[in-house]
Amino acid sequence: MGLLALTTTELLDRFASVDPTPGGGSAAALAGATAAALVTMVCRMPKTRTGDPRERGRLDGALADARAAGDQLRRLVDEDSAAYDAVMAAYRLPKATGDEKAARKRAIDAAVSLATEVPLRTAEACMIVLGTAAGAANDGNPNALSDARTAAALAWAGLKGAAENVRINLAGSADPSPMRSRIESLERAADVTLGGLGLTPASPRTTGGS
Amino acid sequence: MGLLALTTTELLDRFASVDPTPGGGSAAALAGATAAALVTMVCRMPKTRTGDPRERGRLDGALADARAAGDQLRRLVDEDSAAYDAVMAAYRLPKATGDEKAARKRAIDAAVSLATEVPLRTAEACMIVLGTAAGAANDGNPNALSDARTAAALAWAGLKGAAENVRINLAGSADPSPMRSRIESLERAADVTLGGLGLTPASPRTTGGS
Repeated sequence: MGLLALTTTELLDRFASVDPTPGGGSAAALAGATAAALVTMVCRMPKTRTGDPRERGRLDGALADARAAGDQLRRLVDEDSAAYDAVMAAYRLPKATGDEKAARKRAIDAAVSLATEVPLRTAEACMIVLGTAAGAANDGNPNALSDARTAAALAWAGLKGAAENVRINLAGSADPSPMRSRIESLERAADVTLGGLGLTPASPRTTGGS
Repeated sequence: MGLLALTTTELLDRFASVDPTPGGGSAAALAGATAAALVTMVCRMPKTRTGDPRERGRLDGALADARAAGDQLRRLVDEDSAAYDAVMAAYRLPKATGDEKAARKRAIDAAVSLATEVPLRTAEACMIVLGTAAGAANDGNPNALSDARTAAALAWAGLKGAAENVRINLAGSADPSPMRSRIESLERAADVTLGGLGLTPASPRTTGGS
């Protein structure tokens, strides 16, 4: 049974348990999925910011993107935990003989590679959600502006959390440079998008709520 | 039945529905509760960063704080939606006579006041979680560093999302200045804590995962 089939209370209790999974990577994907759901709500509202039909067109596009990225992030909640469980299982393989050692090393390398790729996909999906949240804040119903901006903050946090998990796994990876470059590029893009909404720590928002 | 008794899939679908609740305020509380759960996991691990007994003492304190704030944030997921539902119900009260208008205005003022207070409590609880996440990153098992840092990003996002909801409601509040001052003070504290972890957009982290 997947983690999202648990009640939310049960899922939170699973995060809180001392077992390593589900951990930060799944929590990052959950934050991204929550952000995608909020964007979906805003884009579904009949009213747009000014009523300009071009706003409706852009919101329809954002809705499709947020739903696709949200569906992917829901799957990534489970995939991240499964990938990390596979890493731990590979480390438990026997290493008595030379053959066993070689097989174990191959299994570990393959599992670490997947456990790095999964949070990278989470970061990519969170970046899409962050972009749609910015769109919903610009074009959506002004009554839902705080929902769109909350979604942006959550998608940014999901991306940052995923990036932490990518980096942890890159430390044990054979050729980390291309993936490191990809995740740093995503982080810069996320920081710029959040800054465009005035949500960065560097420039705290001081105007009113709308 | 409370929102957290739904499966996580159902809760995400409720966020995505066009109904205004649950919305950004509940999503912010959920992000904070998820962060608190991750901090709880890290603090429960037997191993500390260096094995210094003072680390264990500090982690035990962080564990107690994270659990209390996490329990509060779980309740705030429901309380935020209930508070917003009460605002909408007050706006639907009859306003045909002068007495009805006066009663409706009092009901709206009281409901808006509560709908501002609830996300302020969410922001305060997220600030506590953010502090415990920083503590867990400093003193906790290095293998869980990415979990602690993910928790910090999620707690920051929960606080920012809650602040958006406070501000939206302050726009309709009689005397907004004390609450505005409180929420801006929390936002500054959150930005400083996140910056101390190198997680701010202003200073992207360029070193490795540990």
